[in-house]
Amino acid sequence: MPHRLHRGDLPDDYVPGPAIAVDTETLGLQPHRDRLCVVQISRGDGEADVVQIPRVGPEPVVLKRVLADPAVTKIFHYARFDLAVLFHRLGVMPGPVYCTKIASRLARTYTDRHGLKDLVRELIGVELSKQQQSSDWGADTLSQAQIDYAASDVLHLHALRERLDTMLAREERSALAQACFDFLPTRARLDLLEWDETDIFAHS
Amino acid sequence: MPHRLHRGDLPDDYVPGPAIAVDTETLGLQPHRDRLCVVQISRGDGEADVVQIPRVGPEPVVLKRVLADPAVTKIFHYARFDLAVLFHRLGVMPGPVYCTKIASRLARTYTDRHGLKDLVRELIGVELSKQQQSSDWGADTLSQAQIDYAASDVLHLHALRERLDTMLAREERSALAQACFDFLPTRARLDLLEWDETDIFAHS
Ligand SMILES: Nc1ncnc2c1ncn2[C@@H]1O[C@H](COP(=O)(O)O)[C@@H](OP(=O)(O)O)[C@H]1O
Ligand SMILES: Nc1ncnc2c1ncn2[C@@H]1O[C@H](COP(=O)(O)O)[C@@H](OP(=O)(O)O)[C@H]1O
Repeated sequence: MPHRLHRGDLPDDYVPGPAIAVDTETLGLQPHRDRLCVVQISRGDGEADVVQIPRVGPEPVVLKRVLADPAVTKIFHYARFDLAVLFHRLGVMPGPVYCTKIASRLARTYTDRHGLKDLVRELIGVELSKQQQSSDWGADTLSQAQIDYAASDVLHLHALRERLDTMLAREERSALAQACFDFLPTRARLDLLEWDETDIFAHS
Repeated sequence: MPHRLHRGDLPDDYVPGPAIAVDTETLGLQPHRDRLCVVQISRGDGEADVVQIPRVGPEPVVLKRVLADPAVTKIFHYARFDLAVLFHRLGVMPGPVYCTKIASRLARTYTDRHGLKDLVRELIGVELSKQQQSSDWGADTLSQAQIDYAASDVLHLHALRERLDTMLAREERSALAQACFDFLPTRARLDLLEWDETDIFAHS
């Protein structure tokens, strides 16, 4: 699997293009507790840049600039979590956002399986290994298996987006999906303020 | 309580001003099942226009125009429900939207009482009667008690908005509240498509 490993930041001369796939690996699922360890990015060309974020170190200025760039769409799977982590840890709210999990919920109403593995299997015909998902992403030196796993999580997001966009258009739900994507940065901010369990939109 | 009762639509010469308080009465809480019976509107001047919507009849063209007017902010309490009903029944999605329940959730984190009665009591010092809330709003002739109740539900929303906006500004949550208000039309559309119980933003 072709990918480049970086320590601390993307290279200075990184050029994102109109859309990048982004995923993060953290020490756990609590953004206030668990630090950001890895940010993976792919331009959709079958390659990935895997950026290891050390516990202490200088700001990843190139990465932050790319994430904040309004001309670059950021494709996530379950953006809600990554946005909260990235905003909390790097102080930048990525946007504009596309989320393959929400697109799948709106387009694939014939199933309740909206995991990345399910999407990649059904829509692309590739079997993803999720073995390294729960591993020590805070390690100083990542294993080759970890790096491969991290890369594999972003390599298919562009293709997924294309398939899902076709389905959303067919069902006339593209605008609805876009409105949900646009709310995701706010959804992530609410999570960080502890409005994660209580639904802010509920009656009571 | 000074208010005007109308049958079928607002008067032709109705002028809304920059913001109107809006509430609806329906035959129940299921927008696909329960029809829209009454739409109440106040300009914040202590008066209300109460529009009875007959089961069959011509389109309320003035009302629809006012609700759709992008220059007129619509203040609701629990907008999510009213937006779904108005969109489903009148085919118009009101906007821009302000919701006193969401503003209260974001500003008044010291309590879990975000009902209209609670808000009006604490922030304005007025005791609202909720006696007519569950009454037959589909009746051909509404009782005086019903009309008074319908009016009372919109008379305080402008004042509530003012108080809540002050609190939101103090806690630096105004932008967060605005982003939630902006999502409400989408939230209502999702409800009408049966994404009411399943949280579209949940992981699984
Ligand atoms: N409550 C939760 N349960 C499982 N995964 C969660 C989660 N909250 C956030 N996530 C993230 O959602 C991703 C998995 O999504 P899905 O189950 O839809 O495939 C995981 O990313 P990684 O695969 O990058 O670790 C994980 O970080
Ligand atoms: N599940 C629910 N339970 C109670 N009220 C609901 C509701 N869904 C929508 N509503 C609406 O929310 C309003 C009450 O909000 P609150 O409880 O915060 O005061 C009611 O409006 P009306 O008072 O116009 O009938 C009612 O129509």
